[in-house]
Amino acid sequence: MSTEDLPTNWGRWGDHDQLGTLNLIDDAARARAALEVRDGVSVSLARATRPTALTAGLSPVATPARMPAPVLQMVNFNGFDPHAITDSLLINTHNAGLTHLDAVTHQPVDGSVYPGVPLREAVTPTGVGHGSADAFTGGILTRGVLLDLAPDGDSLPQETLVGAEDLDAALERTGTSLHPGDAIVIRGGWDIDQPLDQAVPGLSLDAVGWLHEHDVSVYVGDIGDARPLLTPMPLHKVALARLGMPLVDVAQLDGLASTCADRQRWSFLLVLAPPRILGTTGLPVNPLAVF
Amino acid sequence: MSTEDLPTNWGRWGDHDQLGTLNLIDDAARARAALEVRDGVSVSLARATRPTALTAGLSPVATPARMPAPVLQMVNFNGFDPHAITDSLLINTHNAGLTHLDAVTHQPVDGSVYPGVPLREAVTPTGVGHGSADAFTGGILTRGVLLDLAPDGDSLPQETLVGAEDLDAALERTGTSLHPGDAIVIRGGWDIDQPLDQAVPGLSLDAVGWLHEHDVSVYVGDIGDARPLLTPMPLHKVALARLGMPLVDVAQLDGLASTCADRQRWSFLLVLAPPRILGTTGLPVNPLAVF
Amino acid sequence: MSTEDLPTNWGRWGDHDQLGTLNLIDDAARARAALEVRDGVSVSLARATRPTALTAGLSPVATPARMPAPVLQMVNFNGFDPHAITDSLLINTHNAGLTHLDAVTHQPVDGSVYPGVPLREAVTPTGVGHGSADAFTGGILTRGVLLDLAPDGDSLPQETLVGAEDLDAALERTGTSLHPGDAIVIRGGWDIDQPLDQAVPGLSLDAVGWLHEHDVSVYVGDIGDARPLLTPMPLHKVALARLGMPLVDVAQLDGLASTCADRQRWSFLLVLAPPRILGTTGLPVNPLAVF
Amino acid sequence: MSTEDLPTNWGRWGDHDQLGTLNLIDDAARARAALEVRDGVSVSLARATRPTALTAGLSPVATPARMPAPVLQMVNFNGFDPHAITDSLLINTHNAGLTHLDAVTHQPVDGSVYPGVPLREAVTPTGVGHGSADAFTGGILTRGVLLDLAPDGDSLPQETLVGAEDLDAALERTGTSLHPGDAIVIRGGWDIDQPLDQAVPGLSLDAVGWLHEHDVSVYVGDIGDARPLLTPMPLHKVALARLGMPLVDVAQLDGLASTCADRQRWSFLLVLAPPRILGTTGLPVNPLAVF
Repeated sequence: MSTEDLPTNWGRWGDHDQLGTLNLIDDAARARAALEVRDGVSVSLARATRPTALTAGLSPVATPARMPAPVLQMVNFNGFDPHAITDSLLINTHNAGLTHLDAVTHQPVDGSVYPGVPLREAVTPTGVGHGSADAFTGGILTRGVLLDLAPDGDSLPQETLVGAEDLDAALERTGTSLHPGDAIVIRGGWDIDQPLDQAVPGLSLDAVGWLHEHDVSVYVGDIGDARPLLTPMPLHKVALARLGMPLVDVAQLDGLASTCADRQRWSFLLVLAPPRILGTTGLPVNPLAVF
Repeated sequence: MSTEDLPTNWGRWGDHDQLGTLNLIDDAARARAALEVRDGVSVSLARATRPTALTAGLSPVATPARMPAPVLQMVNFNGFDPHAITDSLLINTHNAGLTHLDAVTHQPVDGSVYPGVPLREAVTPTGVGHGSADAFTGGILTRGVLLDLAPDGDSLPQETLVGAEDLDAALERTGTSLHPGDAIVIRGGWDIDQPLDQAVPGLSLDAVGWLHEHDVSVYVGDIGDARPLLTPMPLHKVALARLGMPLVDVAQLDGLASTCADRQRWSFLLVLAPPRILGTTGLPVNPLAVF
Repeated sequence: MSTEDLPTNWGRWGDHDQLGTLNLIDDAARARAALEVRDGVSVSLARATRPTALTAGLSPVATPARMPAPVLQMVNFNGFDPHAITDSLLINTHNAGLTHLDAVTHQPVDGSVYPGVPLREAVTPTGVGHGSADAFTGGILTRGVLLDLAPDGDSLPQETLVGAEDLDAALERTGTSLHPGDAIVIRGGWDIDQPLDQAVPGLSLDAVGWLHEHDVSVYVGDIGDARPLLTPMPLHKVALARLGMPLVDVAQLDGLASTCADRQRWSFLLVLAPPRILGTTGLPVNPLAVF
Repeated sequence: MSTEDLPTNWGRWGDHDQLGTLNLIDDAARARAALEVRDGVSVSLARATRPTALTAGLSPVATPARMPAPVLQMVNFNGFDPHAITDSLLINTHNAGLTHLDAVTHQPVDGSVYPGVPLREAVTPTGVGHGSADAFTGGILTRGVLLDLAPDGDSLPQETLVGAEDLDAALERTGTSLHPGDAIVIRGGWDIDQPLDQAVPGLSLDAVGWLHEHDVSVYVGDIGDARPLLTPMPLHKVALARLGMPLVDVAQLDGLASTCADRQRWSFLLVLAPPRILGTTGLPVNPLAVF
């Protein structure tokens, strides 16, 4: 497939748009999403990330860690007999050990970022000007639908490339249909925080075409782009970079899947409320599904 | 008032409880909260925090900043012609320039943390064991009610000490009543990120008693403890430390106040979804109010 | 002057050399340098750099700072009643507020680093492979000679461009001559930690030719490249990048100048002993002159 | 031995002294030290410390590391086609993987630091006021003498406690004698960057008494305090804290030992020139021995 045949939203909402597929979520979509809440059960879709000690004062506590770590922590010295205890966190947002939201500038294509802004204009050493995670800092609320590709707590075979027909089948199993602006949550039953040379399942370009056709607003997954990497990477280089579709990388979806299965209901209110820190390439996020 | 007369929840939910007043939020409270959503309008209650460049490579870009800063940012070197752009954030959670959630261990009293665990057992150089922000990492959803103490975009006089009767009057203006487990959002119209020697308004001990009597679950405010500091600090040393009531410090509530005034409705769905990072004294948060 | 006419040492010591003009210092040069020590007086040529608090626990201590700062400091929490006190430092080596040694890879020219290694081979996100400060980590000892261009505690006029004849005149004032491998210490009486748009004096290309002709091993200066910047920058893009001559940026030379003037002696033992940290683009250094 | 019987220099040079045993080094000592230089050979006594990548942009490069690490490194993003390459270092000074100098405030005894200043006055969250490494930032030059306790590249038995008689014997083997103000370099042939529960050899209290009687100015060792720890720790709690004798922890002395053996000469010029960063509990250092 040549580049010009790839699905794209460049230009769809203007040449300086920063919202991408978040344009598909309006007040009506949020109001509709809230109707999904019935019994008040809330589930986090984030991994529980344990920080690595950054300094820890004296050395003896040295312990094995994988570095770079997703989050490093310092407990701060606040004086003797401190009246308060504080700590500081160093966050490597895009680490595979931390659930996070990707902003469009995270993934340039051909030297430009969605929807066609030159990368050199978008990013400087002191932060991101265009296409940053500022697009999310008002929060995202919409209806979410879980497509569980490995039901009953199973996991996809290692070399799986998920196609459009797999998504159709999973959607049919839910007994619901999609509205423009819904978020899709895809469970493969995988922990992708693995060494790079290990194969992991992921989505095909075909599957990203499916997300586009259904006017999906946000992608949330415990799987994402397959390894070995495809060219172009369907989620990062097409969905994020060309469709302007925010990606939640490295979700933990087992709790969600069992909550859905218990209720035989695969739709819910999805809330994404990353910290309101400006000018970043992405932000840690704790997606909540509410039933 | 002697220490034994201060309001307390120590022991109310057991001697090792970590949830504090979040125990007051159950499925029914969350379901009831979702019913507040009608027109799908969502408002962030967080300050927009612009990071300070931590390294920024070469020195010439040196610019004035207040240090320690709430958030420091590095844009990372990912090789030449990088296929991805990333950045890292160093977050000083309890900084007055960042909207954040306080965990109970942030504020020891008499060498113990809620509900009576010795501080030395709760905190080590490598993180918080008891009373950390883990209590919030599943997310908090409940009904929120705005008490706007300075309506029409006004701000409280500098030396104000907010009392129970002020909260009663503000609640009466809303025309609604409180349920156990509701969150209270208090607007004084102030930016408290000020030099320490500047007076700022805050809540009296009496007002914290009011929060206790109404079984409030969470406090969100653009004001908090007054300066000069009271002894004990009503919110940090009584509400947080003795009631186990999580505090959202340094909210930005002007948008919320005008949204409420437009609708003449002061209740809403409140969602708090801080990053799921374990063992901290608090976490940055982006509270969302949904109408 | 076209690029091919610029002075160069590329190839002089082979195609993979990492020492550059440090090749000019041998045991005999070090032994000769030690003979400069007579009365045992030692002078530091480094600025005294006060760190900025990186976290400092609570926010109230916020103070104005220029960021990025040369050095950030955390005092660490080592538990209650700590048996030891420790701190950690974040060092932005090339900051204009910190005396430091530049390694050749700090300054690529035309995509290559001294003596012609492609930049992309020399540097990766995890450190410097070729042309790093490892060249200095065994320490540098040699004879140093101060050329004080603004005697009697004076300072150069702001727009001065120092030429070869200025160096000749200053050397003549010292009454000594240079040996191959000597280090040159140049005092202009300036603090160059200034906003970028302020003019500062510096060396001309002609002066760098003079350093080359005298087979100088190391450059130490309180002035360096002039601002507004020349093209190419004589010290960074010719002396460092083409001659492979390590530069000590941002020295503080007033104490040295008065020590020399008191003795009417402008030569001394110079010792550079930066921390032995591998794979960097430069290192902080505290040059000592011993008389 | 009761506390009052421990050797001490508290009060010897006044109640606010910050130099400790560095008072023993005067111009004459430095001039005498320089006479040790004959053939111009220079040897570093520092470990070569490879930094751990702090951020490294994308996560895939994650590699095993022991954390906290002695030094963390970021290669900085300086824009596209950067005209310069820079990096930043986070240094955990007192880590057992990094050669460093201890300042007296690093080790309080009974709530005070040398020579009797209350710890609470000496240290705040924003740095060290009294007893910091500022004492070293002018550089230290003196005569050094190597006492090789495990000649011929050997290493001490694991449980060795080095006593005064061992130092006497080693000194006798050198055929030289000590002058007040000399530095002692002690080689045990050990790498003490080991898990805390592994025994390592170290000095007895008796040996520290020997250092005191000989008016040693600085201690440099590849061994230091034994593990399991003695009470009080002879080097850290007596030599450093009571004698005010700076300690170089975690030296690498194999190169020095073979250089000495080759020459059958165990004395040399020792130079310590840590970065001139103010207000710290210690600093990384690259000790040089010159012959």
